[in-house]
Amino acid sequence: MSDSIKKVSIIISKGSLEGIYPGLIMANGARAEGIEANLFFTFFGLDAINAKRLDRIKVAAVGNPGMHMASLLGVLPGMSAIATHMMQKKMEAFDIPGIPEFMEMIADSGCGMYACKASADLFGFSKDDFIDQVQDIITVGEFYLKAAGGEIIFT
Amino acid sequence: MSDSIKKVSIIISKGSLEGIYPGLIMANGARAEGIEANLFFTFFGLDAINAKRLDRIKVAAVGNPGMHMASLLGVLPGMSAIATHMMQKKMEAFDIPGIPEFMEMIADSGCGMYACKASADLFGFSKDDFIDQVQDIITVGEFYLKAAGGEIIFT
Amino acid sequence: MSDSIKKVSIIISKGSLEGIYPGLIMANGARAEGIEANLFFTFFGLDAINAKRLDRIKVAAVGNPGMHMASLLGVLPGMSAIATHMMQKKMEAFDIPGIPEFMEMIADSGCGMYACKASADLFGFSKDDFIDQVQDIITVGEFYLKAAGGEIIFT
Repeated sequence: MSDSIKKVSIIISKGSLEGIYPGLIMANGARAEGIEANLFFTFFGLDAINAKRLDRIKVAAVGNPGMHMASLLGVLPGMSAIATHMMQKKMEAFDIPGIPEFMEMIADSGCGMYACKASADLFGFSKDDFIDQVQDIITVGEFYLKAAGGEIIFT
Repeated sequence: MSDSIKKVSIIISKGSLEGIYPGLIMANGARAEGIEANLFFTFFGLDAINAKRLDRIKVAAVGNPGMHMASLLGVLPGMSAIATHMMQKKMEAFDIPGIPEFMEMIADSGCGMYACKASADLFGFSKDDFIDQVQDIITVGEFYLKAAGGEIIFT
Repeated sequence: MSDSIKKVSIIISKGSLEGIYPGLIMANGARAEGIEANLFFTFFGLDAINAKRLDRIKVAAVGNPGMHMASLLGVLPGMSAIATHMMQKKMEAFDIPGIPEFMEMIADSGCGMYACKASADLFGFSKDDFIDQVQDIITVGEFYLKAAGGEIIFT
């Protein structure tokens, strides 16, 4: 009859800065509370674990009214880079680590990290393309087995 | 062994009209069924509780194939405003309230409303920036404590 | 005290190719494991069950940094179509079916399919606008009743 959350299985499906951070923050917060946590990367979320790309993840400045920029400005080349730089500066000021450091920190805290097999196949990635913290490439069925007994959070 | 849902913890993470409504509709529907409900606003979702911004929330006309408009049109200044106006007209016709009224109605029905501390810090918001219905700014750990025993829905 | 997942209730709220597939893949994977599964289509996700539109669903090439294309290119008419074509070619190569075939396959496996009443009203759709696999148009309250005893996954 325990009421506390035992486990969270967080799926990261987007490849933008603002698409990746919420899942990382929720995984980090779970581990800090002693909650079992696993991260699953699927679709464009695979960029977060791609050794060649995770340094270059950007804010989606276009099509994001939350950015408070005219769409017309959003499409000028470089605007996404400027928005990303602004957000990174703010994150530093609040001791929020960059994505590569954050991933390492979260893995060190005992959070599992897995890539989705269907997505890895689709984009032609193998385990060698991913950062060392990724333990395995798993199927949807294996995901459900790991997620049992906890909350599934699709971000 | 009860089978019914006891509680929903709904996270709103996007700042566009179509990013905010689904969470509000799910919170409203939960309260109507007597289900305990709490709303958590994070990242660009903070716009929904920002006293200065919630009147100006717009549809993300660009990058949204569901809008059935050519992307080229989407970036002309004002297209997002037109799409927003069209959607608001339709919502009025079906008695779906605007965001400020909807937020008030949902809070009055007993739904809790909370802002995410990490996001509020990042964007430089304090409790004074939020509408009165927001009860508190809380950490991810506090979120998990409140969410225990129910479903977490990240929108 | 069983630990395995008994049921998943998957909400599809986006109308782009990359917004629809994750939910379909998760529903398909659940049925393959013998897990009860229901799909709920809301907001722009209604395009996935719209008999006239589901053949023309496209990748959201603009505002999607995960596509690795300059935003400026993204807004040229046709880029979204090119990105969609590229992704469809890859999907074929990995035996991932197109959306209409996938929907049929998932329904045949015993997955329920429902449209959200508030969204159907908003966009002016009735049951005749949807593919035959859609069993009913239901309210949020009815959704919670169907979802009880399982995981809710909002995609």
